[in-house]
Amino acid sequence: MGKLPAFATRLNGFATRPELFWTEPNYRPGLPDLLRRAASVPGLGAVDLNYPDHLAGPSAAELKHLLDELGLRLNGFAMRYYSESAFKAGAFSNPDPAVRRRAIELTKRGIDALRAAGGDLMTIWLGQDGFDHPFQADHAALWDLVVAGLGEVAAHDPGCQISIEYKPDEPRACAVLPNAATTLLAIAATGASNLGVTLDFAHALYAGESPAMAAALIMRQSRLMGVHLNDGYGQRDDGLMVGAVHPVQTLELLRTIRRGGYDGCLYFDTFPDVAGLDPVAECAANIGTVGALYRILDRLDASNELAELLLRQDAVAAQRIVQRAMYGDA
Amino acid sequence: MGKLPAFATRLNGFATRPELFWTEPNYRPGLPDLLRRAASVPGLGAVDLNYPDHLAGPSAAELKHLLDELGLRLNGFAMRYYSESAFKAGAFSNPDPAVRRRAIELTKRGIDALRAAGGDLMTIWLGQDGFDHPFQADHAALWDLVVAGLGEVAAHDPGCQISIEYKPDEPRACAVLPNAATTLLAIAATGASNLGVTLDFAHALYAGESPAMAAALIMRQSRLMGVHLNDGYGQRDDGLMVGAVHPVQTLELLRTIRRGGYDGCLYFDTFPDVAGLDPVAECAANIGTVGALYRILDRLDASNELAELLLRQDAVAAQRIVQRAMYGDA
Amino acid sequence: MGKLPAFATRLNGFATRPELFWTEPNYRPGLPDLLRRAASVPGLGAVDLNYPDHLAGPSAAELKHLLDELGLRLNGFAMRYYSESAFKAGAFSNPDPAVRRRAIELTKRGIDALRAAGGDLMTIWLGQDGFDHPFQADHAALWDLVVAGLGEVAAHDPGCQISIEYKPDEPRACAVLPNAATTLLAIAATGASNLGVTLDFAHALYAGESPAMAAALIMRQSRLMGVHLNDGYGQRDDGLMVGAVHPVQTLELLRTIRRGGYDGCLYFDTFPDVAGLDPVAECAANIGTVGALYRILDRLDASNELAELLLRQDAVAAQRIVQRAMYGDA
Amino acid sequence: MGKLPAFATRLNGFATRPELFWTEPNYRPGLPDLLRRAASVPGLGAVDLNYPDHLAGPSAAELKHLLDELGLRLNGFAMRYYSESAFKAGAFSNPDPAVRRRAIELTKRGIDALRAAGGDLMTIWLGQDGFDHPFQADHAALWDLVVAGLGEVAAHDPGCQISIEYKPDEPRACAVLPNAATTLLAIAATGASNLGVTLDFAHALYAGESPAMAAALIMRQSRLMGVHLNDGYGQRDDGLMVGAVHPVQTLELLRTIRRGGYDGCLYFDTFPDVAGLDPVAECAANIGTVGALYRILDRLDASNELAELLLRQDAVAAQRIVQRAMYGDA
Repeated sequence: MGKLPAFATRLNGFATRPELFWTEPNYRPGLPDLLRRAASVPGLGAVDLNYPDHLAGPSAAELKHLLDELGLRLNGFAMRYYSESAFKAGAFSNPDPAVRRRAIELTKRGIDALRAAGGDLMTIWLGQDGFDHPFQADHAALWDLVVAGLGEVAAHDPGCQISIEYKPDEPRACAVLPNAATTLLAIAATGASNLGVTLDFAHALYAGESPAMAAALIMRQSRLMGVHLNDGYGQRDDGLMVGAVHPVQTLELLRTIRRGGYDGCLYFDTFPDVAGLDPVAECAANIGTVGALYRILDRLDASNELAELLLRQDAVAAQRIVQRAMYGDA
Repeated sequence: MGKLPAFATRLNGFATRPELFWTEPNYRPGLPDLLRRAASVPGLGAVDLNYPDHLAGPSAAELKHLLDELGLRLNGFAMRYYSESAFKAGAFSNPDPAVRRRAIELTKRGIDALRAAGGDLMTIWLGQDGFDHPFQADHAALWDLVVAGLGEVAAHDPGCQISIEYKPDEPRACAVLPNAATTLLAIAATGASNLGVTLDFAHALYAGESPAMAAALIMRQSRLMGVHLNDGYGQRDDGLMVGAVHPVQTLELLRTIRRGGYDGCLYFDTFPDVAGLDPVAECAANIGTVGALYRILDRLDASNELAELLLRQDAVAAQRIVQRAMYGDA
Repeated sequence: MGKLPAFATRLNGFATRPELFWTEPNYRPGLPDLLRRAASVPGLGAVDLNYPDHLAGPSAAELKHLLDELGLRLNGFAMRYYSESAFKAGAFSNPDPAVRRRAIELTKRGIDALRAAGGDLMTIWLGQDGFDHPFQADHAALWDLVVAGLGEVAAHDPGCQISIEYKPDEPRACAVLPNAATTLLAIAATGASNLGVTLDFAHALYAGESPAMAAALIMRQSRLMGVHLNDGYGQRDDGLMVGAVHPVQTLELLRTIRRGGYDGCLYFDTFPDVAGLDPVAECAANIGTVGALYRILDRLDASNELAELLLRQDAVAAQRIVQRAMYGDA
Repeated sequence: MGKLPAFATRLNGFATRPELFWTEPNYRPGLPDLLRRAASVPGLGAVDLNYPDHLAGPSAAELKHLLDELGLRLNGFAMRYYSESAFKAGAFSNPDPAVRRRAIELTKRGIDALRAAGGDLMTIWLGQDGFDHPFQADHAALWDLVVAGLGEVAAHDPGCQISIEYKPDEPRACAVLPNAATTLLAIAATGASNLGVTLDFAHALYAGESPAMAAALIMRQSRLMGVHLNDGYGQRDDGLMVGAVHPVQTLELLRTIRRGGYDGCLYFDTFPDVAGLDPVAECAANIGTVGALYRILDRLDASNELAELLLRQDAVAAQRIVQRAMYGDA
């Protein structure tokens, strides 16, 4: 089988069902605990840390030491604009210039901290930049603020990759960067070459996208810097296990990014916390599923047959090949 | 392997790409042609006919003879309220009592014709009964008309099964019977015992339902009289090949109906006509997919393990078992 | 103008932007504070309290005294199954019988506390009863557990109205009671006469319902015991201000419930907390909007013209009348 | 009041309910008939013709003469790729290079015919360019074909405006150009300066867009060349009357395009044919609604207050102003 990508995971889910991992009753795990529990998942190789919350306790040096000890690689940092309530009304597009400035400066400090920790991939999800009501914003002004903010943080450290994770909504009802194409327009508008895109499978689904088509577009127009796997029903960010609902589209996405040369992590952005699943078993199941899908991919891409059928847009023949590769022969 | 159900199919898709089946250029096939082409699909065993359009040409006796000759069984009739433009504004709930009466009488004649052809399953899809605009209807009055109409046609021939196929919209923007639960309420309101429900996989998806949960509810509260397989993206009636997008939920539906004792046909309600797919190959692919899913089901139901995990609501363990049954071991 | 209904509101939103109401920096308001701030909204007449969280501090007697002092009426209690993490996997349908029992007993204690506080309307939202993944539950078993749980709490105090608030998802991806019709089936299955339904406008929208049609169905089959107003884009529970997106459908709902004799509160279930809106101004705006819509309703229902157009399903004429009532003459 | 824009309309809806306009029973109107009936709507000033179907009968010169006689202006042509069944699998991205070539050449002939008729606005809706199934297409290849096709037809006549009307689906399940942002990326990729975008209100809604934000983005990145008004529930192309569901967002769109200097037609793309509404009355109702909305806009834009509130993102104050402008004072 071709080499598997490195697997990373959301950490906050590892606080769920603490009694399955820690003996102390009602244990409230800290970040080092979460890292230790995540490291107990066989095959997990990397983690992302949220900035600033995950960096509030241990120093970058201490974290590095712990990650080394646990055999985990730092995949990167992810910005979270939760640290002050004023960010609720916007980070890069906050109507108050002072708040906006603080959001941008926080991002720069996050980039600096990331570099100090030896990383070079900062994921930015602008969940607060958007609006809720009709007649709540001047959309052109909102756009300009977001583009200017992205340009400024990209220019802060041109050697650091800045990847924008798009999402249709949540917490705001309407995001400025809801889908891949809008994000690509914003990146082009900045002119920065160190900006790229993080594709989250469930976000793409409920943005109404074909995840594979979105990945192809991103790779054609910019750079795919991150891939989040999970699943859902296409209406919201359900955070289900990989392949639970859409294994065929997950397979199509994996094929697209592998052929396009994506060599970053596959990050599991799932929510075992919703119903209290064992996060270790849940993460192991995700790794197992992706392994199964890669074995199927190897079968599919052993010849050029599927590639030719896709160019011919022959859905029936392609369906047969894909289903045989997935479910075996009769 | 357990016995497979009988397979039936939508006929109108078999008019697509006539050049692949008929040598005459631009051939416009009639119903007997469509039946012959459908019969060429290995494994297809039954057909549904639309009333009145499919019965406009050949007599019931002629059709019966042709079906026998082709080795096809008549699964039943399906009402279509296209025969007069006044039905656009409603069949059973048309605001004009005379039009409403004609829709009900047409349905009764359809039931009579079905019985004359030796069948006993009439599928009713009330796609015209609904509304488009807010402030277009008195919803309570609309409901009463639909319930009364269903009651009247059910009483016309208590020995004939009348199955209601629900659908959220199309052609009307809002259907009176958009989902399983509303349909079950209407059936209960009639008090008729020969009414049941046809579950269409893609309709259930875009009604926001779990198809398996809808089937379980139907079997608990009424009778499941028909199952239409296809697939889609959960936003509209896409008519894709079975398993193309949602194989796991298709598998879950098949497991639910098999355990619930459903012994009717599996009817492929797919649209090879949208992009001009070869309808024979497309139908054969659907039969192949359902065969693969039944083999997976046999593996899943060989022990009681999955049933117990479902009662314990253990999603992680169930996911592992299901994916192993689908994709094999590592 | 006809008499306006009483207005109630969600309380937790009144903790937002504390600096606008309390002088102490970073003030963390308790329930009495929230009540005082809510009472400052002109025209607000009633509140719902969440059980058990809102009842954790002050006694029922103290609350009653405070409400009297503030001129607020207790509209009722609303159950929240957040008090133990085991409820995450289900309240009435929890796979663990002991947890399930605790959820039911908590509900009974909530009913008792409500009655002790002089109220007789308990709203139950079973947000935890559902599933996330395909192959996570035995749907028939889940249904039976929910129906049995509802029956038991209804039987606990037949003089107390128990109103079920349906919602398609959140926190679970798929709710057992996602829409009006399913809720009505569950109510009928219990046989209890003190069960009814709470219709939340945004929930209805993203359940794919016409809110007015849902209300008509509820009033035909059971009792409408609660109405939550808000707005959204039909994809999730956005919590926008009343009329912000769908004023016409809000108007249609108000007309339907007024003609149907609904005499309960109109409860604003909006989320000023999302972007940090002033909750007092936001609530006042909602009251203002409903007032405007009732003035429009008075104009609409001054004659029987609209009622007749709806029976004739004359969308064009009805649209003209409605728009003239809303926007005035040219 | 500020000057109203010119109104244009979809013509095919004017074949509905022929008995209301023509005395001959079951009259099947031709294009000149549809034009005459459309011209009977007071205030309608322009029409779009579909190419090639509407141009199949009368010559361009005859049409021009008829339009002059009726007092209608030709707003432009709209391409329809229905003229051969091979286009079902794609126009500009058809897998067969010969079919693709015919689609491009047909478009060029359409542009030539438009210019011969004195027009300079060609609307292109690539409804056939997309895919239905996962694993049906090589998405990057599809993208390149669409971009190349657009570039070629734009280069054919640089003096002609070519406006791309995006739409999420229908007839294909997944369009290559499903939303505004993807369309803008495609336009930028061609480098052509005579390409622009047509925004259809209902398409924008079910693309998950805020129509006003989409318009602002289009006007910032390219040119807004066409605006189609209608309404719907955000799930599909419902074709409802203007303002029937989303008057606030319609108002926000009209404000955005007026302030952005859009001076083209407002085209009613509604479907009176679905339920057999009188198309003349329906079109008149749409004109009336837009008139009412423009009067509201005049009130809103009489001062700079709303513009300032939008820059401050003050949703509550803006909501109050907008609702007062819509519904009047208490």
